[in-house]
Amino acid sequence: MAPVAFAPYNSHDFAVEEATVPDSPPPSPDRPQQYLHSLANGLTLVAEFIPAVRSAAVTLLVPAGAASDPADQGGNATVLADWMLRGAGSRDNRALTAYLDDLGVQRSLSAETVFLRLAGAMLGKNLLAVLPVFADIVQRPMMPDDGFEPAIDLALQQLDAIEDEPSHKLSLLIRERHYPFPFGRPSVGKRDDLEALTAERLRDDCRARLTPQGSILAVAGQFDWPALVAAVEKAFGEWKPLTPTVLEILPGPRGNLHVTQETNQSQIGLAWDAVPDSDPDSILLQAAMNVLSGGMGARLFTEIREKQGLCYSVHAGYASLKKQGAVFGYSGTAPDRAQQTLDSFIHELHRFEAGVTQEELDRAKIGMKSRVIMQGESSGARAGAIAYDFYHRGRTRTLDELRDLIDGVTLKRVNEFLAANPVKELTVVTIGPSALEVRGLGARG
Amino acid sequence: MAPVAFAPYNSHDFAVEEATVPDSPPPSPDRPQQYLHSLANGLTLVAEFIPAVRSAAVTLLVPAGAASDPADQGGNATVLADWMLRGAGSRDNRALTAYLDDLGVQRSLSAETVFLRLAGAMLGKNLLAVLPVFADIVQRPMMPDDGFEPAIDLALQQLDAIEDEPSHKLSLLIRERHYPFPFGRPSVGKRDDLEALTAERLRDDCRARLTPQGSILAVAGQFDWPALVAAVEKAFGEWKPLTPTVLEILPGPRGNLHVTQETNQSQIGLAWDAVPDSDPDSILLQAAMNVLSGGMGARLFTEIREKQGLCYSVHAGYASLKKQGAVFGYSGTAPDRAQQTLDSFIHELHRFEAGVTQEELDRAKIGMKSRVIMQGESSGARAGAIAYDFYHRGRTRTLDELRDLIDGVTLKRVNEFLAANPVKELTVVTIGPSALEVRGLGARG
Repeated sequence: MAPVAFAPYNSHDFAVEEATVPDSPPPSPDRPQQYLHSLANGLTLVAEFIPAVRSAAVTLLVPAGAASDPADQGGNATVLADWMLRGAGSRDNRALTAYLDDLGVQRSLSAETVFLRLAGAMLGKNLLAVLPVFADIVQRPMMPDDGFEPAIDLALQQLDAIEDEPSHKLSLLIRERHYPFPFGRPSVGKRDDLEALTAERLRDDCRARLTPQGSILAVAGQFDWPALVAAVEKAFGEWKPLTPTVLEILPGPRGNLHVTQETNQSQIGLAWDAVPDSDPDSILLQAAMNVLSGGMGARLFTEIREKQGLCYSVHAGYASLKKQGAVFGYSGTAPDRAQQTLDSFIHELHRFEAGVTQEELDRAKIGMKSRVIMQGESSGARAGAIAYDFYHRGRTRTLDELRDLIDGVTLKRVNEFLAANPVKELTVVTIGPSALEVRGLGARG
Repeated sequence: MAPVAFAPYNSHDFAVEEATVPDSPPPSPDRPQQYLHSLANGLTLVAEFIPAVRSAAVTLLVPAGAASDPADQGGNATVLADWMLRGAGSRDNRALTAYLDDLGVQRSLSAETVFLRLAGAMLGKNLLAVLPVFADIVQRPMMPDDGFEPAIDLALQQLDAIEDEPSHKLSLLIRERHYPFPFGRPSVGKRDDLEALTAERLRDDCRARLTPQGSILAVAGQFDWPALVAAVEKAFGEWKPLTPTVLEILPGPRGNLHVTQETNQSQIGLAWDAVPDSDPDSILLQAAMNVLSGGMGARLFTEIREKQGLCYSVHAGYASLKKQGAVFGYSGTAPDRAQQTLDSFIHELHRFEAGVTQEELDRAKIGMKSRVIMQGESSGARAGAIAYDFYHRGRTRTLDELRDLIDGVTLKRVNEFLAANPVKELTVVTIGPSALEVRGLGARG
């Protein structure tokens, strides 16, 4: 099992067994270095060695997120995320917590749309002692009876808390309306489903869904690659693959939705379709998004917040499922300015389609490159980034590759892309005292 | 102006002119290194060189935060924080934004309790081009007429948004009730004051309060110390000191307050007095706080959330003004469990006074040391940390010193400290459908 370094490698290389590349050069001690190792059971280990840090960050993605919750059990993944930490392998709840605390591991387990995400940050010297415990958590969770009711209660309380936070509630509603089912399902679940759930049903669901097939283990920071591969093989090699859940996909409801609520601020959410992250053109959209909403000089901020003073918060961000991307826009504003805010937002979308200027693009590229370099200094950020890189495109990208990608963005390419990909249909959700009229783009749908 | 390295230096050294230490050794290229330089006008430059990073982070603290807002002008600092970025020196709003964006600077200006905080993250190579602009912002803000109304509007909208977020509202109320005036003043201000404010009054206030006296400029990451000192002297050396604002301090209202509101969750805030950060014993309190609320193994989380499932969120954190510290506790919980949650929280405070175990303390120390090392990898975190280090104790602390400090914490010292510093008086604020009874500790006050 000789290590193989790749920087960058092409999208088919990850299927190549490392043993077939025995003569790859050893990693240079002062340069970041990326690695990949595929386990026979379907788990993929990706890693980025960061010479300058003493920390190591781990992100383990298991395809058992909210999207694959059974149809009538919305929220299972969220309850599982709590329950699974209440003891695993030979360690009960208390022993598991004590073991990880004794190694100074900051960790979290959360239900995302596609994945359950187990993340940890620690000193590199403790990495190999932590991996077997992470393996226990996903392969041998105890799911003790006495931990089930508290886990359900906590999920119900999360739902209550969201009702008290209109901006949070909006962010869930706009995803649910825009994304195809089941990718818009809120990971916090539904009250009726949670109240009907039993420990036995959740155990069955857990046994049916936690699989190495399609799981990704990302490590960034300080480690020794051969030792890491050996430790991962030992801890995760026996994890049995299951038949993956096949998701039945249905279109999202889309259109416009208003929820009347006597809030002090009106909440406005917008969504429109975009290319997926794996599309080679997604870098063009990302550059353009930085012109629209990248910071204090970006259009939404200067035009709607600064010049017109319409709202304190206004922004838009690109997100991507594996086969489909979307842009989500948000504003929280005074009810008597909400209509004008929505109109102005849509006006900016028209301007967006018409293209950006050379000056705007240059500025956006500088910001993107700065953030790439700064991200490279954080083991936690890099572990998350390479995990999702692998999910979206079957390979990881080095910082150098990301920099080259940004350098290759030209005004011509961006503006041709924007003209060819107009905002065809807008999904709009509002929460507040009164409904708004969606004028302009919405009508084109 | 020869560089002086200190690691650590004692609390009086910062008054020593660097020129008196001409023979200090050059910084070792692979070790973090701290520096200090005092300007004649009262501004102090503190810096930590981090050899492994390419980024540089800047934190500039100017003592013009909410606490020093004129008595009838609550919110001035928040409005200023917006207005000051709308043009400075020879650059109008647009030119200022473009200049900083062209250097890839992520920045923010915010009103804290004591300070206005201007923070920036950038590549080290751009640091010297950014400092003169930061100097313009605090010395020569344009405060243009056409930016005033939008800045006021945004502050008012922040107030509206807080009314929609009970947990945010609670966090402001508990500080306002517990801290002495003016340190409990919410930086977002008061509606009446904001509506009565004029551009001219705010300009006068700005001219009276923005002073190098007591200001701290912290830089962490990649830089060349002699060049940094020269650039800071050039950019900030002519900044004229003003007579510092003398704050009239009045005791906080304290006691118990309930705000009736038909929320889904009850919000509970607690506060009690603690030693200030500059007290040598504060490290003992911080270690103990990690036992109470440091993570998944901490007492509040395991006892109240995990075992009893009473609430999704429960935590407590230490905070410190210059001469006075406090611990703030929080829980968001179902209204029908709110009383039990509050009772359990107070029960944990009794147990807290009775001391922690060796096992709990060892675990807390490991977590603290891990976080110190991980913080050392982030230029942004280090810039903020050394700025506040200097504010609290007149000197910065190296990572090695922090590690030694944690190593020096013993069970005997912690438990003697806890026994000698019981929770004498509790300030309690609740928001929700019905009031709660404060039983136990509150009665002792």
